[in-house]
Amino acid sequence: MTAAIVGLGLIGGSFALDLKATSFYSKITGVDINHENIDVALRLGLIDKAQDLGSAVMNSQLIIIATPVDAALNVLSQIMTMVSDQIILDVGSTKVPIVNAVSGNPKRGRFVATHPIWGTEYKGPAAALQGKLRNHVTVICNSEESDPDALAFAEQMYDSIGMKRIYMGAVEHDLHAAYVSHISHVTSFALALSVLEKEKETNTIFQLAGAGFESTVRLAKSNPDMWTPILQQNRTNILDVLNEQINQLKIFKKLLESEEFGKIYILIQKANEIKKIFDK
Amino acid sequence: MTAAIVGLGLIGGSFALDLKATSFYSKITGVDINHENIDVALRLGLIDKAQDLGSAVMNSQLIIIATPVDAALNVLSQIMTMVSDQIILDVGSTKVPIVNAVSGNPKRGRFVATHPIWGTEYKGPAAALQGKLRNHVTVICNSEESDPDALAFAEQMYDSIGMKRIYMGAVEHDLHAAYVSHISHVTSFALALSVLEKEKETNTIFQLAGAGFESTVRLAKSNPDMWTPILQQNRTNILDVLNEQINQLKIFKKLLESEEFGKIYILIQKANEIKKIFDK
Repeated sequence: MTAAIVGLGLIGGSFALDLKATSFYSKITGVDINHENIDVALRLGLIDKAQDLGSAVMNSQLIIIATPVDAALNVLSQIMTMVSDQIILDVGSTKVPIVNAVSGNPKRGRFVATHPIWGTEYKGPAAALQGKLRNHVTVICNSEESDPDALAFAEQMYDSIGMKRIYMGAVEHDLHAAYVSHISHVTSFALALSVLEKEKETNTIFQLAGAGFESTVRLAKSNPDMWTPILQQNRTNILDVLNEQINQLKIFKKLLESEEFGKIYILIQKANEIKKIFDK
Repeated sequence: MTAAIVGLGLIGGSFALDLKATSFYSKITGVDINHENIDVALRLGLIDKAQDLGSAVMNSQLIIIATPVDAALNVLSQIMTMVSDQIILDVGSTKVPIVNAVSGNPKRGRFVATHPIWGTEYKGPAAALQGKLRNHVTVICNSEESDPDALAFAEQMYDSIGMKRIYMGAVEHDLHAAYVSHISHVTSFALALSVLEKEKETNTIFQLAGAGFESTVRLAKSNPDMWTPILQQNRTNILDVLNEQINQLKIFKKLLESEEFGKIYILIQKANEIKKIFDK
């Protein structure tokens, strides 16, 4: 069986490696408008060959769209005009725009909207890692809009690479994703900009920065080609949580200004409740 | 040689373990007003015995103050009335208040103000870890105010546990610490509060939260007994950077509202420059 991966970045490359390891797929075909990505993916053995989108769709049973989420809309609508009974998956971080884009399309049933929750702050095929998707969650959205056989195929693929499936409506997904992923990136970008703005002595930052700083600012290294369209597509939800975040910081600011440290103590204790989410 | 550790938490406990491993110290004495901490520290073998502050000071060559930074001011002023030629170190995250508190004290020279840059989000002696301080930086502040033999002793101690020493004035230290450590905690507390406020379905957070969220929110688990006094003591610097952070978030908010995604792209690219600090 042949799988085509459209978009040979960190995520597409990591799927290529994991699919190869399952032995379900004898061939992985890569599609990318960036020739350097193709060269690297071939050289690293992530893919067996490169093709244009039309040939890849024609010759594959499974097509995985792993481009930035803006390009994914275009790629999917092109694929929809070519596809017969193949299965198409996307793996993007926003789900409402893509399910809306194909709603009512006669080939809608061949598409399964998914969001595997994994990534690193690095980009490109050279950043791809094998076996890292295992045990992470993948969200399958609006599964009732996919043909039963396409859905079953996608489920089997995720099972084969060891991901845990959960199901959710696209609207609900995008709301939660704003809270537990997208806002973390915005705060991390803002933190990096604050520090770079004020700390001209980068050597001092380097020497003094502990693991705490590194972990809160790590996401600020994330790829603008990937993240700008996510912020664009999930703009309304992200604005909601961004307002809440600014509001919480203003509460800290006010309490620091008025030196109400007893109240700050209580806020920190409340924030500590986030433990119950991760330590269970 | 005997070392006394005052404050048997994560940091005090980790110093106890590392000092023991050097074989310079045949005995580690623990001091803590919390009896449970003492019991745990004895049971886990972090300390050889527990004493009250007076006896511990009298019977030790080195005294390490590892309490929260508010308690450290009191503990140090008490020790100053008891000490003859012992060496006293503190390991707190703020340095201006403690060096000011002992400025002009006849025993000032016996004290060395330090800040080893290491920690985790966990607390108490059971969270202590051996060998983790190694290769991290410790900042020694206002070293010219310490007696040469006391300074040399402290330097040797840090060398023996494998920490790298850097030197800085206390004022400069507290400014930089606000940027590269304290603000990360405030943004992480605020992020946890935002998410807990909006996401009542904690199970959804747990399932959807990727490594990105976990790393930005990890510090929100930090101990309020430790962090409230740090925010209190470094209030002015933290307010400066907090204002800058709110400002940066408002820029993102405005650009999202006006849908200026080209400008957001440029901001993310600028934030990416934080790479040069960590990836060098």
